[in-house]
Amino acid sequence: MGEFELLALLRERLPTAGGRLRLGSGDDAAITVPGGAVATSVDALVEGVHFRRETATLRQIGRKALSTALSDLAAMGAEAGEAYVVLGAPERMSEAELLELGEGMAAVAGETGTAVAGGDLTRAPVLTLAVTVTGHAERAEDFVTRGGARPGDALVVTGELGGAAAGLLLLEDESLTGDDGLRGRQLDPTPLLAAGQALARAGATAMIDLSDGLAGDAGHVAVASGALLAIEADDLPIAAGVAAVASAAGRDALELAIAGGEDYELFAALPPGAVAAAQEALAALGTSLIVVGRVEPADDAGPRAEIRRRGGEALPSRGFDQLRPRRPR
Amino acid sequence: MGEFELLALLRERLPTAGGRLRLGSGDDAAITVPGGAVATSVDALVEGVHFRRETATLRQIGRKALSTALSDLAAMGAEAGEAYVVLGAPERMSEAELLELGEGMAAVAGETGTAVAGGDLTRAPVLTLAVTVTGHAERAEDFVTRGGARPGDALVVTGELGGAAAGLLLLEDESLTGDDGLRGRQLDPTPLLAAGQALARAGATAMIDLSDGLAGDAGHVAVASGALLAIEADDLPIAAGVAAVASAAGRDALELAIAGGEDYELFAALPPGAVAAAQEALAALGTSLIVVGRVEPADDAGPRAEIRRRGGEALPSRGFDQLRPRRPR
Repeated sequence: MGEFELLALLRERLPTAGGRLRLGSGDDAAITVPGGAVATSVDALVEGVHFRRETATLRQIGRKALSTALSDLAAMGAEAGEAYVVLGAPERMSEAELLELGEGMAAVAGETGTAVAGGDLTRAPVLTLAVTVTGHAERAEDFVTRGGARPGDALVVTGELGGAAAGLLLLEDESLTGDDGLRGRQLDPTPLLAAGQALARAGATAMIDLSDGLAGDAGHVAVASGALLAIEADDLPIAAGVAAVASAAGRDALELAIAGGEDYELFAALPPGAVAAAQEALAALGTSLIVVGRVEPADDAGPRAEIRRRGGEALPSRGFDQLRPRRPR
Repeated sequence: MGEFELLALLRERLPTAGGRLRLGSGDDAAITVPGGAVATSVDALVEGVHFRRETATLRQIGRKALSTALSDLAAMGAEAGEAYVVLGAPERMSEAELLELGEGMAAVAGETGTAVAGGDLTRAPVLTLAVTVTGHAERAEDFVTRGGARPGDALVVTGELGGAAAGLLLLEDESLTGDDGLRGRQLDPTPLLAAGQALARAGATAMIDLSDGLAGDAGHVAVASGALLAIEADDLPIAAGVAAVASAAGRDALELAIAGGEDYELFAALPPGAVAAAQEALAALGTSLIVVGRVEPADDAGPRAEIRRRGGEALPSRGFDQLRPRRPR
């Protein structure tokens, strides 16, 4: 089967219709009519760097590639729009395997209302995915950047932390036992698109998705906003089962929660008066929202995130690099 | 140097301002306000598949990655807008080398008015580039697809063919001699953005850029348009010097011109009455436009491109696969 035939088969499996899409895959370019502001994000997943074939099925890899890309749009408060996928496939991969990967993507596209509008298929030495996603809002100002947190704002986080890092420990060391739900947090994260839009509507001043870990990601918000983000370690919502896995692996649960990364929860700043309404809106979506700290003016040491133990001791803002598998060093 | 510092250095070198760009690289997503219709295309370049480090500098690789992506927008008649770049870098590549690659891209971005609005940097086993480009037009109908060629339309091609394939032969066999301009056609193609827009304004009914070679690419237009594309082999504009290289390499100049690929010229269908005005508009841009055939109704054998020798003998429409280095098989 040639490239064009395989692309046609993949295309059949992917949702390609969307309100803003006028022409999908198969021409020199896809055509959209956004009718407002567009948020665009690109994300790469490389075998051996971001995932290992031994611990994930191709369907899971396809799902995660699109989900993690869409998570960046969730962090803007965007409505999901279109996805464009570059797939680099090693020679040993069969067509059936490529279609399994495509079906994983198609499932997430269907669940999130994303139209897969284009792509490119090529040979590569290892399985390589590069996903571009576009999201929409009426006006550019409707998107929530990392840079708007103001002193006095409350810091909030959705859901629970540490689950994905604990899941990674379980996947990489079969002698450990733990909840399958933790493995699921690592293998199949959910992009919180509706929650992101609700937080934007509730007046979030800054937002980011937790891909690298709270310590690092909150640091990005702090620097972009020129503020000090004071986070209470003891208030962080650590996922059930994380403490047991951490203990069995000789790790610290808090370390997994703040530096493990890949939870793809949302971390946001909200004016204090907006917190209750935001919590109510997210509760209606089945998502919890917990206040974990507040924004303070930057002091002489400059903008940064400080994660503090009760009593005032600050943890290192970026400390546990060895757990972060997603980024090159 | 970490990922974030390197990205910051790359960012400094890239043109990030653009009329439609509200927020560039550095947040979860870039923000644009297109104000009309958008054409989006993705393209991947993988070391060992699409290029070899032995025959191209990193600056050339960076230039070509962006130029070939933009060529797809030229084929839509789009105005260049934004680019998003995924860069997969092997561990052995130095920061200076990555910056050289970035400078090649920056040069093309500057020459074409493209804003580099976002990207992702990751480790990969070989140098891997995935480039997403967006182009603009007032309305979706202003873009030229592959599917609108109508019986009676003239078929036209810009510039000259075969130069890139001859350049590849020269680069891969140092015992051959030939014009450096041919090597340049292979290493540093020009995206014909202004010519594409002029052809769109002149009323082009279908258009494609010649990346795979005229035989295959005209076939895509034929199938998308449901027509028979009759192309006169003897009218094709073969680049100067191609015949000599072909002869020295034991190849056929016409074969290089129709199946070599990577010329990145534009091939379009135009109503016959629009040809003269299109030629005049392109001449003002320094680009030649030659009539090479015409569109006929598809017969019982179905939509296809036929490249005919004077006298009527048809060449195989897709025949010379071994020369096409850009696509996996």
